[in-house]
Amino acid sequence: MVDIRPATADDLPAIVALLTDDDLGRGREDARLPLDAGYLAAYDAIAADPNQMLLVADDGGAVVGCLQLTFIPGLTRRGMWRGQIEGVRVARTRRGAGIGRALIERAIAECRARHCGLVQLTTDKTRSRAHAFYASLGFEASHEGMKLAL
Amino acid sequence: MVDIRPATADDLPAIVALLTDDDLGRGREDARLPLDAGYLAAYDAIAADPNQMLLVADDGGAVVGCLQLTFIPGLTRRGMWRGQIEGVRVARTRRGAGIGRALIERAIAECRARHCGLVQLTTDKTRSRAHAFYASLGFEASHEGMKLAL
Repeated sequence: MVDIRPATADDLPAIVALLTDDDLGRGREDARLPLDAGYLAAYDAIAADPNQMLLVADDGGAVVGCLQLTFIPGLTRRGMWRGQIEGVRVARTRRGAGIGRALIERAIAECRARHCGLVQLTTDKTRSRAHAFYASLGFEASHEGMKLAL
Repeated sequence: MVDIRPATADDLPAIVALLTDDDLGRGREDARLPLDAGYLAAYDAIAADPNQMLLVADDGGAVVGCLQLTFIPGLTRRGMWRGQIEGVRVARTRRGAGIGRALIERAIAECRARHCGLVQLTTDKTRSRAHAFYASLGFEASHEGMKLAL
């Protein structure tokens, strides 16, 4: 049984390996040890921020999935908080086994616990299987996700 | 000349009035005074969080536009920070005069100052004029924006 739990610093190499083993991530990540200092600084920023939560799927000590959750206060909708999911990954050899679903369901539960009115994410338009997956969890593709690289 | 500046608590009634005077906002916001306590709590949460920034467009003391910017640390792309824009509004009578552009350009500049690698936003698929506006600022509609109401 896979356990969904908050990540620790010890999980970082395994998480970066997951980010790298991805069709879009391959060219932009680097899982070699020692890890790029950018990952360590980002982990510290996430760990220090009470509005960030990093979750991993742990199968007997092996990290087989991850996601990041951000809680965002906002004025719209009478001051509604929203939860935002980024960086969802499941190990290539473990896909289709419900691990992604367990991660997202845990993220949704954390958003409910923090009284969020909405959970949101964006997914690259080339990831067509991801769209069907999120739709099966109740997400609606109601918005355009627009990005500007700096 | 419209001045783009960080919001203060005194701007809150005017900001909520902008959020209410919107095709999608009309049914979900309430600008009556005293303001709904949800707005006050959200303002306090934003003001207390160094990763949140609320900007207003000020025309001689009148608030004629607003947006919220969130700086999000993340592990993906070697620990890249991203800036996220939410709640962009321009007073109905002042649209088409460059105020939205000035707000977004200021937000992009703030993201550069914080070394973000990406600026992102989602916009409701029914706001077709907004898509062209953001495209003219360099944003690409590369992602599906998926939402789940709780």
